[in-house]
Formats: sequence, C-alpha cells, structure tokens
Amino acid sequence: VNEGALLAARKNKDKVDMSDLESAKDKVMMGAERRSMVMTDEEKRNTAYHEAGHALVARLVPGADPVHKVTIIPRGRALGVTQQIPESDKYTYSKENMLARITVLLGGRASEELIFDQMTTGAGNDIERSTELARKMICEWGMSDKLGPVTFGKKEEQIFLGREISQHRDYSEATAVEIDSEVRRVVNECHDEARRLLQENIETLKRIAETLLDIEVLNAEQLDEIIDGKSPKEAKE
Amino acid sequence: VNEGALLAARKNKDKVDMSDLESAKDKVMMGAERRSMVMTDEEKRNTAYHEAGHALVARLVPGADPVHKVTIIPRGRALGVTQQIPESDKYTYSKENMLARITVLLGGRASEELIFDQMTTGAGNDIERSTELARKMICEWGMSDKLGPVTFGKKEEQIFLGREISQHRDYSEATAVEIDSEVRRVVNECHDEARRLLQENIETLKRIAETLLDIEVLNAEQLDEIIDGKSPKEAKE
Amino acid sequence: VNEGALLAARKNKDKVDMSDLESAKDKVMMGAERRSMVMTDEEKRNTAYHEAGHALVARLVPGADPVHKVTIIPRGRALGVTQQIPESDKYTYSKENMLARITVLLGGRASEELIFDQMTTGAGNDIERSTELARKMICEWGMSDKLGPVTFGKKEEQIFLGREISQHRDYSEATAVEIDSEVRRVVNECHDEARRLLQENIETLKRIAETLLDIEVLNAEQLDEIIDGKSPKEAKE
Amino acid sequence: VNEGALLAARKNKDKVDMSDLESAKDKVMMGAERRSMVMTDEEKRNTAYHEAGHALVARLVPGADPVHKVTIIPRGRALGVTQQIPESDKYTYSKENMLARITVLLGGRASEELIFDQMTTGAGNDIERSTELARKMICEWGMSDKLGPVTFGKKEEQIFLGREISQHRDYSEATAVEIDSEVRRVVNECHDEARRLLQENIETLKRIAETLLDIEVLNAEQLDEIIDGKSPKEAKE
Amino acid sequence: VNEGALLAARKNKDKVDMSDLESAKDKVMMGAERRSMVMTDEEKRNTAYHEAGHALVARLVPGADPVHKVTIIPRGRALGVTQQIPESDKYTYSKENMLARITVLLGGRASEELIFDQMTTGAGNDIERSTELARKMICEWGMSDKLGPVTFGKKEEQIFLGREISQHRDYSEATAVEIDSEVRRVVNECHDEARRLLQENIETLKRIAETLLDIEVLNAEQLDEIIDGKSPKEAKE
Amino acid sequence: VNEGALLAARKNKDKVDMSDLESAKDKVMMGAERRSMVMTDEEKRNTAYHEAGHALVARLVPGADPVHKVTIIPRGRALGVTQQIPESDKYTYSKENMLARITVLLGGRASEELIFDQMTTGAGNDIERSTELARKMICEWGMSDKLGPVTFGKKEEQIFLGREISQHRDYSEATAVEIDSEVRRVVNECHDEARRLLQENIETLKRIAETLLDIEVLNAEQLDEIIDGKSPKEAKE
Repeated sequence: VNEGALLAARKNKDKVDMSDLESAKDKVMMGAERRSMVMTDEEKRNTAYHEAGHALVARLVPGADPVHKVTIIPRGRALGVTQQIPESDKYTYSKENMLARITVLLGGRASEELIFDQMTTGAGNDIERSTELARKMICEWGMSDKLGPVTFGKKEEQIFLGREISQHRDYSEATAVEIDSEVRRVVNECHDEARRLLQENIETLKRIAETLLDIEVLNAEQLDEIIDGKSPKEAKE
Repeated sequence: VNEGALLAARKNKDKVDMSDLESAKDKVMMGAERRSMVMTDEEKRNTAYHEAGHALVARLVPGADPVHKVTIIPRGRALGVTQQIPESDKYTYSKENMLARITVLLGGRASEELIFDQMTTGAGNDIERSTELARKMICEWGMSDKLGPVTFGKKEEQIFLGREISQHRDYSEATAVEIDSEVRRVVNECHDEARRLLQENIETLKRIAETLLDIEVLNAEQLDEIIDGKSPKEAKE
Repeated sequence: VNEGALLAARKNKDKVDMSDLESAKDKVMMGAERRSMVMTDEEKRNTAYHEAGHALVARLVPGADPVHKVTIIPRGRALGVTQQIPESDKYTYSKENMLARITVLLGGRASEELIFDQMTTGAGNDIERSTELARKMICEWGMSDKLGPVTFGKKEEQIFLGREISQHRDYSEATAVEIDSEVRRVVNECHDEARRLLQENIETLKRIAETLLDIEVLNAEQLDEIIDGKSPKEAKE
Repeated sequence: VNEGALLAARKNKDKVDMSDLESAKDKVMMGAERRSMVMTDEEKRNTAYHEAGHALVARLVPGADPVHKVTIIPRGRALGVTQQIPESDKYTYSKENMLARITVLLGGRASEELIFDQMTTGAGNDIERSTELARKMICEWGMSDKLGPVTFGKKEEQIFLGREISQHRDYSEATAVEIDSEVRRVVNECHDEARRLLQENIETLKRIAETLLDIEVLNAEQLDEIIDGKSPKEAKE
Repeated sequence: VNEGALLAARKNKDKVDMSDLESAKDKVMMGAERRSMVMTDEEKRNTAYHEAGHALVARLVPGADPVHKVTIIPRGRALGVTQQIPESDKYTYSKENMLARITVLLGGRASEELIFDQMTTGAGNDIERSTELARKMICEWGMSDKLGPVTFGKKEEQIFLGREISQHRDYSEATAVEIDSEVRRVVNECHDEARRLLQENIETLKRIAETLLDIEVLNAEQLDEIIDGKSPKEAKE
Repeated sequence: VNEGALLAARKNKDKVDMSDLESAKDKVMMGAERRSMVMTDEEKRNTAYHEAGHALVARLVPGADPVHKVTIIPRGRALGVTQQIPESDKYTYSKENMLARITVLLGGRASEELIFDQMTTGAGNDIERSTELARKMICEWGMSDKLGPVTFGKKEEQIFLGREISQHRDYSEATAVEIDSEVRRVVNECHDEARRLLQENIETLKRIAETLLDIEVLNAEQLDEIIDGKSPKEAKE
C-alpha cells in the first residue's frame, strides 16, 4: 500500500487508485520493471512463447492456481513473468496441486520445444523448481505410490547460520536409485502432459504469444478472451 | 498452573477452575489457538477427516495411549490436533507401543486416502515422525527380527553446539539396504493396518469427522459416545 | 570414602561402617537412588526380569565377572542395575571375557523375550554396548578368525575438542560387508547363548525375578542361595 | 574509456581515438600484454596453431559468437587469445549456442592434434571449461534428451564466505553414471566436430596460423580475408 | 644423560655409570617403570609369553633390528616391552625390513595363540601398527607387486592444526578392494610366518618366557644364551 | 646471487666466481648439503644406484629435460639428488614431456630393482610425484585417449586458508574405476620403459653409480663422458 501511495504521488495524483496498488504489488512480488533492457527480437519472441506456455498450461491443467497476469516486460532477473494467485489462502496442498505446479513450470520449456524445436538456458530455473517439488513429493510428503508414506533424508539445520544447509542422506544407494527414478518419472510425465496440452491447443498458444509480443502485458480477462477465440486486437480493448 | 491463573484472571473469575487449567495445558502443549485463521471449507473438511483418522485409529489399535482430545481449531503451526495422554508415566516402551504410535500417526493420511482418494502435504510431519520411529526401532532398539539385537549408526554429538547433529553411518551399503527395507516394511504394514481399521469402521470415522466439523472440539467422553453409536447431536450435549 | 562418611553423619552414626561405604560406592558407581520415581507394576515386573536375566547369565557364562549386586531401585537414568566387579584389577581381556560381556549384556533382552514374548526400548543401551564391543573385537583387537589380525578404521582425534570424534573409514565396501557380517554373527551367537542359558534355567530366572520384585535388592550371597534352590523367603533372611 | 584516455595521454596524443579504446578494451578483457615474455619457436608455433584452431572453428560452427580478434601475444596467464564478441547482449542461450561454445573451446586442442599429432598442457583450461559447460547443459539446463528436464545436484551456498562452494550430490550412483556418460558424449561429439571442421579446412587453418606467426594479431576483417583465400601478405595490408 | 645423572644422584653415587645411563634411556624410550602395579599371575604369564614371542621372532626373521632388551616390568601403558635398536642410523628401509617389522609385531599375538589358544586385547596396539605398516608399504611405498609403483590416497594437511588429519581417498571402490586384499595378504603372511617360526622353536620360546617370569628382564646376551640352549639359571648369572 | 656473494665472502675471495653461484643455486634449489650425515655403505650404494637410475633414464628417454648434476651428498631431506634443467623456459608441456618425467622419476626405483632385487622406502616421494603427474595428465589435461578431452574432479579452493585443499569428486564410481585404471596403466608403462632402458644399458648404469660412489658429484659433462664409455677415472679429471 505504501509503495502504491508513492507511485500515485510520483504521478501527481490526488488519490491512490487500483492501478497504483496493482503496480505496487507487481513491483514487490516480481521485482522492478526493467523497460530499459534491450532484448533482440529473437529473445522477445522466445520469451513470449515461453510465458504463453506457462499461462496456457496453467489454464488447462486441473488443480493449478488461476493466472493473474502474464508479461514479457523484464522484471528483476526474469525476462518475463506469469503470475498465479490462489483463490484463497492455502495451508496444505494436494498431490494434484503439486503435479499441476510442476506441469505449469514445464509449460515454458515445452512451448519453446514445440514452436522453435530448441531448448534455452532460460528454463533452468523452472526445471530446478520442478525437480525440487517432485523430490519433496516423494521424499517429504510420501506422495509416491511406489515408495509409500516414508520420508527420505534428514534435514541438518545449522543453527549458527540461522538456516538449514544440507539434507543428510540416511538411505541406501538402492533406495537412492528408486528415488531418482520416481523423481524423473514425475517430472517427465508432467513434461509430457504440458506438451500434450500445448500441442492440442497450439493455435491458442500462438494467439497468446503474439498478443504478448504486441501489447506486452495480459491480465486474467484478456487471457480469457484470447482463449475464447477473440483476436488479439479485440482482447486489447 | 500459572498460565491457568492468568486465563482465569483475564475472564474476571474469582477462582481458577478445571476449564482454565485445561485451556492452559492445551496452550502449553499444543500452541496458542489461532481462531482468526481463515481456512476454506475444503481444508476444514480435510482436517476433520485427518484428525478423525488419528483419533479413531488410536482407539482401535492395541498398545496406543488413550485419546484425550481432538480438535480442528488451528493451534501453532498445526491445522488440527489429536492429543494422546498415557495412563501413567512410562520409562520404557514395548515394540507393540511403538507400532501403535506409527499406526496412529499414519491414521490421518489413511483417512484422507479412504475418504477423498487424495494425499496432501499436511501429512508430511506425521510421515516424518513415523519414519523416524521405525528407524529407531530397527537401528537403536533392536526390534527387527531380521536385523537382530544390533545397533546401526553412531551418534556424533557436537558438544560445542550443545546437541547431537548427525548420525554417523558405520555400516556397509548392503546393511543399509536391509535397514531401508525393514523401515519401509514396518511403515507400510502400519499404514495398511491403519487403512484396514478405518475401512472396517468407516461409518464411525465419518461420524467423528462430521461432529468435529460441527463442534470443532471433542473430549474423550464425547469421542466414546460417538464410537458407541450416538449421534453427533447427542454427543454434543 | 568421603561419600560414606557423609552418609554416616547424615544418619547420626558414631562410626562409618561397611554399609555406609557400600551405599557410597553404589551412589558413585550407579548414580543416586530414585526411590520417589513411580513405576507401573508392569514396568517393575519387566525391570525385575530384565535384571534377573543379566544376573543369571553372568553366573552361568564362562569368563564373566562375578555379580556383586542386583537391584530394581531406579538409579540415575537406569530402572535397575546389575553390578559386576572383577576379582582383581585387569589390564587385558581375552576373547572369552569379551564374548561373556556381550552375552551378559544381552541377557536382559533375552529374558524379556522368553518371559513376556515382547521387546522394550529399555534394552537399547545394552544393545548399543554389545554392538560396540563386538565391533571392537573385530576391528581393533583382531579377534575374528575370518578377518584376521588386522585393524579396520582409523581414529581421528580432534585435538581442539579434547576427544576423539569420529572413526575414519579406510577400507572398502566389500570389507565393510564382511565386518558387518562378523559383528552381527558375534552378537547373534551371544544372544542365542543368553537365551539358551536362560531357557535351561527358566525356573531359577523366575525365582530371582520374583525375589527382586519382593525385596528390590539382592547381593552376591542372596543370589547364590536362590540359584542353589532356596526359596526367596529363605534368601531374604 | 578511462583506460583508453590514459593510453592516449601516454602517447602524447591530443585525442583519444578508436585504437586507444581498442587497446584499453583488450587490456581490461584479456589482461595486459606481456611482450617481454620469451617463448621458444616451438611454443610460438604451437600457440599459433592452437589459436588458429579456435578462430577457424568459431567461423565454421553454427551458433558461435563472431570472432573479434586473434592474437599470439601473451596476455595475463594466456600464451594467446581468441576473442569472440556476441552481436548483441544476450540473456538466454540455446542448446545450439552451447554446443558451438564447446566446439570452439576444443578447436585449439583439435588443431594441435591434427598438425603436430601431440597434446599439450596448454589446452587444460579449454577442456575444463568445456566439461563445465557440458555438465551444466545436462545438470542445470535440462538439455540432455536422455536425462530430460530434471536438475541434478544442489548448490550449497555458504553465506559466510560470500560464494557458492560446493555442489551437493543428491542423486544415486546409477544416475551419476548416466550423467558422466552424457557429459563425455557431448564433449566427445564436439571434439570430433572440431576435428572434422579443421580437417576439411586444413589449408585455411595453416594460412591463419602462419599469418599469426608473421604478424601476431589478426582482426575480424583480416581473418575474413585469409579464409576467403587471400595470402597472408594481402591480409596484412 | 641428564636423566642418568639424576638417577645416580638419587642413589648417592659419586659417578654416573653405564647402568644409570641404561636406566635413563629406558625411562625416556619406554616410560617410567611401574613396579607397584599389581598383575594377576595369569596376566604376568600372558605378558611373558607375549614378549618372548616378539623377542624370539626378532631373532629369527631376516631383516629385523637386533633385540636390545626384553622386560615384563610394566612401563608407561605397556605391561611389557621388547626393545629393538638398529645397528646404525637408517634413512631408508627395504621391503624385507618392513616385512620383518610386521612379523615381529605379530609375534606377541602368535605366541599367545600357540601357548594358550587364546587372544587378548593386549595385542591391539601391535595389530594396529602392523596394519598401518602394511598399508604404507602398499599405498605409499609402492611395495606391492600387484598394485605396482603407484601411491593411493592423498594426505590432507590441515595447517591450522599443525598436523595431518586425514587421508583423502582419491581412488575407486574397486581399487579399495584390491588395497584391502593386499593389506590383509601381507599381514596374514607375516602372522603365519611368526607362528611358523615360533612353532618350530617352541621349546626356546618357553625357555625365554619362563626366564622372564623368573628374572623379569633379559638383555641381548642373556637372550643369546637362552637361545643357545643354556638353562635360565645359567643365563641369569 | 646474494647467496653466492655470501659464500664467496665466507671463503675470503675477492670475486664471486661461477663456482660460488653454482653452490648458491644448489643450496637454494636442493637444500643445504648435509655432509655430516652418516650413512651406512649399504645406503650409500643404494643411493648411488638410485640416482644413477634417474640420471641415465633422463639421458635416454625422449622429451626429458637435460641432466645438470647428479650427487649422493645428502641435501635437505634427500639422500641424493638428480637435477634437471630445461633448455629454455617453458609454459606448456607436451604429453611426451610428461611421460618422460614420470619415466625419469621411476628410474630410481627401477635401478634398485634391477641391481639389488629390492625395493626401499626411499622411492616413496618419486612414486607419489609420478602418480600425481599421471593423474593430472588424465584428469586435468585430457591426455588419455580412452577418457578423452574431459576434466574430472573440481578443485575446491578454500580462500580463508589461502590455498586449495581438496579435490571435489564430481564423477561416478564407474568413471573412478576408469581413471584408476588409466593412471596405473600410464605409471606401469613408464616403469616398464625405465626398466627396459636401464636393462639395455646396465653396464653404463653401473659405471655411473660406481663413479658417484667414488667422487660423489657428477656434472653434465662428466656424465656424458661416462656414458660415452670413458672410465670413471678418466671422467674424474
């Protein structure tokens, strides 16, 4: 709210309106906009399809949080952002929620593969988070039917540093093989699912990406309209 | 007791009665109530069936400590609590006691599986404690017939930090495979047992959960009455 | 001796007699008595049979130190104590002595198994010490015919902490498998021997345990009398 | 720019011209020239073919950044430098870019092998960077079809030292075997490609190396002319 | 020398003679005598045969340093000592010297086995040193025909503690298996050799041990006489 | 130079001549002479053949640096020294150079084996350095045809100690097996080569060693003369 008031003041407005608060929230949650950053057309295009992949998968996979905004304006260290906001505060997550998250995360890479037949380093962070979630599903939340309701690995908190540093491995190599195989199975199945969803809706994917290239930001309603078949031009208005 | 006197004073009572002491004990043992925390109906329902699972298994499995209270009012970091209090102070625990503990811990997850055919992250802590107990049974207390009266792993106390940090592995990979297999066997057998007990008493499970959704807290007598077939309404009074 | 004088003074005695010194020695060697500790009858009974198991095996196995006293009065962190004192100071121990020690340590657990068909966490410390002795026999003292006069593992003293912290593993996984197998063989053979000795003398075991439940402490002579077939009543006098 | 001004001042120039800025840039990016360093003719010749290998592969492999300058004047700790500058700032890199980088890095060693049938320690740094890139492609950016969009290894930042120190291995030995095999496959394929490109253009390679021995530095245009078949003499002018 | 002068002074002698220097040397090299230490006859006998084993093997095995003195008077932490002094200062040792050392070290245990058919913890230190020497022969000095002139393991000196703490393992598990097998082969062959030598000279072994029990200390000449067949009585004079 | 001036001054010379500088250089590069050190004839002879082995192999193997001096006067911690000085400063080394270095290092041990059919601890340092070089060839410089242009192991510099402490193993056990096998192949081939060279020139080897025993130091020319068939006596002059 503070940030919003500052933004309004900077624009010499009398009142802080909703658009100021929206901008403030974006700044806090996604980092400051970096409009001055110069990207090649190729990178812009790549980013647009990457974010469109996230956004479309998030709309199609059951159990995913609703998309609030998609943008290809660089913010912080990201070239683009797809922002999801849950309908209400949540304290526990189901296996379905977790699989949906991983599928959405891999939607960016899947889109690049489908459209450009290429992989980029830009998906590195998505892949890291997917792997981490899959590992937690299996090792902390007992969500693998094969490995059952057992936890693997023991956190070693190092108090003097104020945070957990390493995961102590307390299982056998044979179990490590099973865990690896389950993690890779989960990630690969989500990746396949993301590709399948985007392949089946490839025209929608292209419409979202092209609109993003055109107007750079899409909110939830605009995204709805494009998915419903409206032209980018109609969605813009 | 101190806490109880404070609670009584806050209510302008003349005397500290049993209800004050009960509240004080709950606060100390389970953390402060967080009535202001907003949960979705889905999470409430999930929590009710999770706690009902713990409570019912605790009543059915031989060797478990008696249930003192079940609640779905969030306390500390937990969305709900099933509190067990042993009949008397105990210094040693039998293998039967330990298996009962694990079975009760897994009763929450088992209930969610039976009722919603879903797993949630909420059972993560139960699973971690189950695995830890199963591992101690096998590695510290010699309670595996297969591995015999031998201890595995050596505690490495780090004095300068005032607490034990890591378990030093002093056995071969082949032994690690056997330990893993025994830990998973114990946990899986307890999980199966919890499911079997709940499946055979699924109507009772539903009555407990629905009453919890209705009145949020159940003490030992109320739980008895519901198990004995009384309606939630009757139990309430 | 100091402690004995204090005890005598506390009882307003003129002289420090043998019973004061005995009490002082017990306090120093086994921790202070905790007569105020409330144990359930079940735990008392369990403790009595556990200690009776230690004591009887110590009398039956060749190479064990003589039993000086058996008690089920809690002392320090132990619920009961079987105290052995060697006939003279010893600087080296034979393989036979070591096997006897392990067999005596496992006599407690063996007795619980035979009488109650149950295992408890109370034997955890006995098992830990048995495993440690068996490992030292094999890895430090070259007492395994299979592995020969070779040491395994290198102590890493950390001077700045004033004590040895970890045992550095300097052998292959294949050797680790052999060591594990030898450690388990030694412990299991001693456990079987303890069970066999107690099974063959089960009536004596019961007489010792029941007398302990009755009079709580047995000295060497009383133990002799019970083993010689005297009734607890006779032994008491 | 500062450095360029200093250079101009040192030469008593009135203005800072492009050549001053170029020298300044080289000094900052590649370390100071070490013209005083005495190399044997053999080492000079080796360096010339090594750098010519980098430069020619960089011109031939798709996805590589353009070559800006090649030199066999020692700079910093390097005996020679091939400098590549991307056409525009880039934030993400494709799999093709990464493979090109590795192939260029291995071009130096490949050239030495082809011309002298010898390997030298001088390629150590190129090989280290190639291996690192190949490992990142597979373990951080999910660029291996065989291992899929999964990350392997967890960075352990040690805050108190202000930088990441070690990569925590969180996968099984079986996975480690797959990773090793993929890393070596990628590096070997790039090495083979570099050799193939140089073998097919061995006359060009020789012309570049001989010109370097002659005039020590080649800029982008001179390199173009030599590749286009001009004689070193023509390129010099 | 200082220590010798002190000893002479304590005896009110006018001069420091050879016997004072001998006592001083023993004190410095083997620790102070502990004549007050009470050992059982069994332990005395065991010690005598243990030391006789060391001494006799040292006389029989080629490449061993000459025996200077044998004693069963406890010194420092040892119950007995066999002291060997090389004929001249040596800077390098041959493989034959090393094998002789190990064989002498294992002569104590071998003697106990032959005479008492028993093993004791007293040989723990001999075994540890044998294993260490065998490991160094193989891993540091390239003295294994099977493993060749290669070193295994890298010392990690930790400067801030002023001494080497751990041996870093830089080889594969497969190599570790070979090393273990070679270490055990060397130690076992030396042990067999020690047993063979003692078995073939068992009467001499007994004469040495019995004389030690009688007069507690034997110097080189006395040892010679006993080996040459003189009676203990003759040797005493 | 400073050291040379001091030496000249100590000899009351007017000028610092070449012999002073040579002595100074030896002192700085090889440690101070220890003429007072008493060695047995056996050790002297062993050292002479050891150094003669290094020197002769260095003359025979292609790619080795020229021998500058051989001596059996103890210096620093070494009983003898063979000093090689490259013809010019070198910044990179070929695979041939590295193999030559290892072969020269193993020439000492090979000579002892051929002449005395014995191994000594004196070759420990040579073996350690050979293994280290072979490992670097394979793991850092990509000089193994089997493992290719890939690096293995990641240096972990620990800044606060000012130096690299450990080599982080970032490869699989299967790769470790291949590395070990390559390291051992390289070292064994060089050892065989050293033996072959010495065996084929055994008379020259003996002449060098005997001259060393006679005059203790040989410079490059003297070494040449002995190899050319001159008698030690002729070489002396």
